[in-house]
Amino acid sequence: MSPKGLDYDSINENVKKAQYAVRGELYLRASELQKEGKKIIFTNVGNPHALGQKPLTFPRQVVALCQAPFLLDDPNVGLVFPADAIARAKHYLSLTSGGLGAYSDSRGLPGIRKEVAEFIERRDGYPSDPELIFLTDGASKGVMQILSTIIRGPGDGILVPVPQYPLYSAAISLYGGSLVPYYLEETENWALDINNLRQSVAKARSNGISVRAMVIINPGNPTGQCLSIDNLKEILRFCYRESIVLLGDEVYQQNIYQDERPFISSRKVLLDMGPPISKEVQLVSYHTVSKGYWGECGQRGGYFEMTNIPPETVDEIYKVASISLSPNVPGQIFMGLMVNPPKPGDISYLKFELESKGILESLRRRARMMTDGFNSCKNVICNFTEGAMYSFPQIKLPPKAIEAAKRAGKVPDVFYCLKLLEATGISTVPGSGFGQKEGVFHLRTTILPAEEDMPGIMESFKKFNDAFMTQYEDRGGYSRM
Amino acid sequence: MSPKGLDYDSINENVKKAQYAVRGELYLRASELQKEGKKIIFTNVGNPHALGQKPLTFPRQVVALCQAPFLLDDPNVGLVFPADAIARAKHYLSLTSGGLGAYSDSRGLPGIRKEVAEFIERRDGYPSDPELIFLTDGASKGVMQILSTIIRGPGDGILVPVPQYPLYSAAISLYGGSLVPYYLEETENWALDINNLRQSVAKARSNGISVRAMVIINPGNPTGQCLSIDNLKEILRFCYRESIVLLGDEVYQQNIYQDERPFISSRKVLLDMGPPISKEVQLVSYHTVSKGYWGECGQRGGYFEMTNIPPETVDEIYKVASISLSPNVPGQIFMGLMVNPPKPGDISYLKFELESKGILESLRRRARMMTDGFNSCKNVICNFTEGAMYSFPQIKLPPKAIEAAKRAGKVPDVFYCLKLLEATGISTVPGSGFGQKEGVFHLRTTILPAEEDMPGIMESFKKFNDAFMTQYEDRGGYSRM
Repeated sequence: MSPKGLDYDSINENVKKAQYAVRGELYLRASELQKEGKKIIFTNVGNPHALGQKPLTFPRQVVALCQAPFLLDDPNVGLVFPADAIARAKHYLSLTSGGLGAYSDSRGLPGIRKEVAEFIERRDGYPSDPELIFLTDGASKGVMQILSTIIRGPGDGILVPVPQYPLYSAAISLYGGSLVPYYLEETENWALDINNLRQSVAKARSNGISVRAMVIINPGNPTGQCLSIDNLKEILRFCYRESIVLLGDEVYQQNIYQDERPFISSRKVLLDMGPPISKEVQLVSYHTVSKGYWGECGQRGGYFEMTNIPPETVDEIYKVASISLSPNVPGQIFMGLMVNPPKPGDISYLKFELESKGILESLRRRARMMTDGFNSCKNVICNFTEGAMYSFPQIKLPPKAIEAAKRAGKVPDVFYCLKLLEATGISTVPGSGFGQKEGVFHLRTTILPAEEDMPGIMESFKKFNDAFMTQYEDRGGYSRM
Repeated sequence: MSPKGLDYDSINENVKKAQYAVRGELYLRASELQKEGKKIIFTNVGNPHALGQKPLTFPRQVVALCQAPFLLDDPNVGLVFPADAIARAKHYLSLTSGGLGAYSDSRGLPGIRKEVAEFIERRDGYPSDPELIFLTDGASKGVMQILSTIIRGPGDGILVPVPQYPLYSAAISLYGGSLVPYYLEETENWALDINNLRQSVAKARSNGISVRAMVIINPGNPTGQCLSIDNLKEILRFCYRESIVLLGDEVYQQNIYQDERPFISSRKVLLDMGPPISKEVQLVSYHTVSKGYWGECGQRGGYFEMTNIPPETVDEIYKVASISLSPNVPGQIFMGLMVNPPKPGDISYLKFELESKGILESLRRRARMMTDGFNSCKNVICNFTEGAMYSFPQIKLPPKAIEAAKRAGKVPDVFYCLKLLEATGISTVPGSGFGQKEGVFHLRTTILPAEEDMPGIMESFKKFNDAFMTQYEDRGGYSRM
């Protein structure tokens, strides 16, 4: 018989090429071990609630009431819900036409897009247009939509930081484009070197690639750095000169763990620079309810905002969004709540502040504990997590370990991470899943395990690592930095 | 300056080619008129809650409790929620790892996929494997994922019924494949003619197209027919002989408005046929919480189930699903509730039965009212809506109306539907958005307006239509059937 449409040999090759290490070999092995009864600490993905983070109470009250609008008429509702949550639920229901069960406009509810625009204006000091804000089922879906709009074929290149979050490499493969890497400098705390960026573009062009867009992840994933204003300005000037669309992945903007380098949006820097740059550079920036102190990953809420994108293109993006009708409406309401949390004087204000500050301060402590823990290990060095949710230590693997990995048919950092998983139950992602310089090895872990578990986890890591290093030690030297 | 990545002229041409009439020109005009204060009856999209259908109480109670798990410990919770909703919420929370705020497995929560598999087994009489069921953010997302897996380029053809639901044409354009139309027979109540199907495939092949998959929509959208077992058998034999993947869009399986032709799943017919067909035909079938008597469109819950798909391909589909991490978790719980509604003896059983039967019986009456209403109009003929949510009357436009449309620069049915919208506020979708035979015109409307509004809407339609027909009347005859 002739081959069938879903036979492995006859499916779309781009599907096969896409790789997504965050849920790759390590995750699959961890899931198996869990099924067998082993205790697994899933630090492979930024999924705070899965590691015990409690949801913020007020937003959950509001969305619960929106799901059960019949409660709003129940005389007993005040016994279980505070008045401001009831009022807010009524407000959001009034923005829908038919409650949570009705499709919204394909860009999301107009009333919530307006609240997002007001948030952006407060954050950046420049007005934002709700018509240029699209709500999405999490930020990833928006990233994928924009990349699929830009990429026409293998001649189209997208600049992506290395190390990168593999959503980008995976989506670029899926849409048949070319990933153009630019390297972040580990010894400079993962700063972006503009000369390196220029060289990457020159090299891509010499290979016939037209570089059409550039991704920045700020704060960095997996690298945890916060970009400086100067760095952002250099990037924007570069995008201006080279006519490159900037995709600003800013989903970790609430996750900042130091005071020297607060989060500054690429949009604010762009608009601060004034014309012609502020009028010319095409920017799409992303946000989500999955990160920050919210961590509402499972709700799938996000948005992207477009700056300097021509209206005809916005129409096309709207049309494509409409094919899948609308983002999920509860996720939209979470986004509304995120950009419009309880205010001083509201009944729920103090509780909300207590909960959100508690999470953020604990994350800050955990970032410190993790960095210090890694740096106390043999052959491990680690930059401090300035922001985001990850630690990305470099693991200096001895040559004998690299040889052992080769014999086992594994990439060396995969080999290391698998051994770590089997020995300790800690499920990480090998650095090769994010890209790294040749011969240098890392792993990514989230900083999300519960604070009280952190000392035990770091101790368990150190015990494994130091024994591993001793096992493979070779006085002849380690893999080069 | 050189063109920028998101300039209209430089974006992906496939994005521009995609058309989605359900939210196209008519919808955009209706939205404008609404903004200007005109009362619009949105019958362009199957969005029941937007037209006043109330959500089923029990599922909303369960999901509200899952959103607010702190209520489960509240001594007052029993005052506002019944005990079986509380128990069910605890059950679903126990299937998550971290509640609704945690990403699930990228295929959906294993416990809910198991409930879906049990539902499929009860429905079809054959066991179903939860590992071959993927939960999705509504059925559309799953359709898009499978099409993007199958389509490699313009040489790959997908058989799509005409008239069709434009998700299919839009997605095929977006992924750069070729749509191969097969025509449903309006005079045979939109049955599928297998000879026509053969001719379509032969014609596509003579144009160098390799036909790789076939879409059936059963019950039909926009056409409202239910496929007979004989028709389904012919289709499956055809797919077997031609090595064609069958995509069974069965999202309207609960929406049946006659007793002669109940819904039968393509999977049941396939497995009833026995080997070799039952072992060979690759089938992907779809379901959703957006339709039926649920109508929970805004929640974005759905699934697809795969039969006879090789494990290596399933792994690739899993990998691509993992790039966007997980479908929204509340939508997954709605799917769990849909396949596992309250049972006799449960506290909420009677209320649930009353609500769901009430909706379904009213839809049945509305289907009848709408068909009869259209058939009472001048130059309008309409098949009865056996299932789904739509009426798809043929509008026999007089030559003078067609000429007037041409002068206005409009496709004739768009011209008619725009006039209808301006005159009555009824927002429909022109038949050209779904595809139709040359020179034949239709419109699609949902049967969803509230039952008490239906006589007024049909009267308003008739008044407009009959005046329109009189205005453009020409004793020379009408456009051919």
